[in-house]
Amino acid sequence: MPLDHDAIENLTTPALLLDDAKLTRNIERLAARVRALNVSLRPHMKSAKSIDVALRVTGGTPGPITVSTLAEAERFHAAGYTDIMYAVGIAPQKLARVKALRERGCNLTVILDTLDQARAVAGVPALIEIDSDGHRGGLAPDDPVLVDIGRILHANGALRGVMTHAGESYTVSGVEAHREFAERERAASVAAAELLRAAGLPCPVVSLGSTPTAHAAQDLTGVTELRAGVYMFFDLVMAGIGVCSTDDIALSVLTTVIGHQPSKGWILVDAGWMALSGDRGTADQAVDQGYGLVCDAEGRVIPNLIVTGANQEHGIISLRPGAHGAMPDLPVGTQLRILPNHACATAAQHSQYSVIPADGGPLLGWPRFGGW
Amino acid sequence: MPLDHDAIENLTTPALLLDDAKLTRNIERLAARVRALNVSLRPHMKSAKSIDVALRVTGGTPGPITVSTLAEAERFHAAGYTDIMYAVGIAPQKLARVKALRERGCNLTVILDTLDQARAVAGVPALIEIDSDGHRGGLAPDDPVLVDIGRILHANGALRGVMTHAGESYTVSGVEAHREFAERERAASVAAAELLRAAGLPCPVVSLGSTPTAHAAQDLTGVTELRAGVYMFFDLVMAGIGVCSTDDIALSVLTTVIGHQPSKGWILVDAGWMALSGDRGTADQAVDQGYGLVCDAEGRVIPNLIVTGANQEHGIISLRPGAHGAMPDLPVGTQLRILPNHACATAAQHSQYSVIPADGGPLLGWPRFGGW
Repeated sequence: MPLDHDAIENLTTPALLLDDAKLTRNIERLAARVRALNVSLRPHMKSAKSIDVALRVTGGTPGPITVSTLAEAERFHAAGYTDIMYAVGIAPQKLARVKALRERGCNLTVILDTLDQARAVAGVPALIEIDSDGHRGGLAPDDPVLVDIGRILHANGALRGVMTHAGESYTVSGVEAHREFAERERAASVAAAELLRAAGLPCPVVSLGSTPTAHAAQDLTGVTELRAGVYMFFDLVMAGIGVCSTDDIALSVLTTVIGHQPSKGWILVDAGWMALSGDRGTADQAVDQGYGLVCDAEGRVIPNLIVTGANQEHGIISLRPGAHGAMPDLPVGTQLRILPNHACATAAQHSQYSVIPADGGPLLGWPRFGGW
Repeated sequence: MPLDHDAIENLTTPALLLDDAKLTRNIERLAARVRALNVSLRPHMKSAKSIDVALRVTGGTPGPITVSTLAEAERFHAAGYTDIMYAVGIAPQKLARVKALRERGCNLTVILDTLDQARAVAGVPALIEIDSDGHRGGLAPDDPVLVDIGRILHANGALRGVMTHAGESYTVSGVEAHREFAERERAASVAAAELLRAAGLPCPVVSLGSTPTAHAAQDLTGVTELRAGVYMFFDLVMAGIGVCSTDDIALSVLTTVIGHQPSKGWILVDAGWMALSGDRGTADQAVDQGYGLVCDAEGRVIPNLIVTGANQEHGIISLRPGAHGAMPDLPVGTQLRILPNHACATAAQHSQYSVIPADGGPLLGWPRFGGW
């Protein structure tokens, strides 16, 4: 739908901007990789949480997706998506909602890594989570419990396969390092699948992925599908580990200058952590981007200017520590764009994308949702 | 309104819990101080963003409040609040919305600290922001621009007074340290008011406050009103600087155990940064609480158990670094409560409070809002 205020200069700030041309370029970039790797894609919608973005990603009609909450599953199913993986370990208390969705025609699968969960899900299709890099949950690919879980699931006709996510790939930089994590994901999930098959159990799905490994993998033999989410938007964390450039980042927060402290070299803006999120994901990277990298209203990076402090509704912009040079002249009322550290976290602070169309037409408003 | 699921064990997790008995106790504690200090109270609603909480704070009927966004001003005005300070430096682009609210009968005041803003607001009542501690915005109390701004505002009948906020008081611990910041707030705002008055300008309002200074101030001579916000909920940051105890914290996030990594001493729960926020406000305090302090489902602190890691929908709970002892046995499906580092940031991740009534009756659902 067109926005009430159809030009950037008329938006109420802070506002979440989405550059449709960059979104499209990012989507096409991963789509080309998936074709080359000969796997299917199950994009993760936890970053987008938007039907409009999802349709852009899945080519105009619903396709397989991944979600991080049952609220997402319910929203996407209501919009026509029927093939959904809920990729957070299932809590038994949530099975009633899962079953209700399945009864409404949603082919919703869950994930798990314990015997108790396997017993609880009964006939609900499930994937067994494999730990490929020590990041979070999942069983080691050679854990004998894997087969025990597989047998319980299979007895109920619920064993769909295995899945893993190399979340630790975010902590290393460069395509060579990401390629190693991609191979760890592949090796762990394929080994787990082989262990199940050797026990006479079916394992039709071998699912893996993260944005860094998706863009680095050279060979996915034995893998059936790839998952990734932030690749559609990208962010400073991804740029910091070499997966994209800052020019690829499709999301930004539009903000307005509301004051100055010239003696400190501070520009105050109306985007604090409420609009940017408190994410400091670049703090441990080679280049710390503070709470975000500052661009002019057209999206051109202003060299060395970052958000160095964030209160609830105030951002403090200053030169990067150690940087030399004069502060640009940005009077009260000037609009700026802030590139986010972590697109998922920043987008989550907003209820709408203000979309800049590729054709230069009026802005569009794409709603996004939250909750559980 | 009563919730669909009227008992904690039936709530969908993660969920934001509000303990009404603690809320009431916290409200009464500050109310007693305000009476003793002989000032009026203008509570800040940026933490609560809830009509139900606001009515609790203002004694059942609307009273003077502070807000951090025009969306808050509009929502509270629609609920009957007519005396509102918008305590973020005004951007000229926002004056149309300010004027529209004023035309609907809302006595909305803005704040500013530049000549350009003073010229832009024209007849909109404004307070001049004073910098009492180098925290963020505002003029030094002896800055000659203060009188220039005062004259411009007064020529339009718009000079309401001065205001300050000692945000740096959050960085020091103990009542003595907070008392120093309280006196800095008082001295700076009263000096600024005297400067205006010496120039023949009116300064009816002298407004100041923060939760730490509000609870420490001994004398507010010359001050007319006090502002504070997080005092109604409290949080681990406030406990860490000695303003409250962990038992005073009225907000928590209810979560469910969804897995374990026993070899690492990890318990995985379904509250990640989406439910807790990414705020790490205790990171620089004497006791780092990670992403939150873990309690059992009844709200009793489990010694040394904190959220040491947070992904989007996963929290990793483990023993505090350096702590000894066995992990408690918390099977998949167990409910826990997480006390937040920063109540404003955690509450902002939720659209509703699940309120535990003081009388032990069924839970209530109090909606909260966001946006700008």
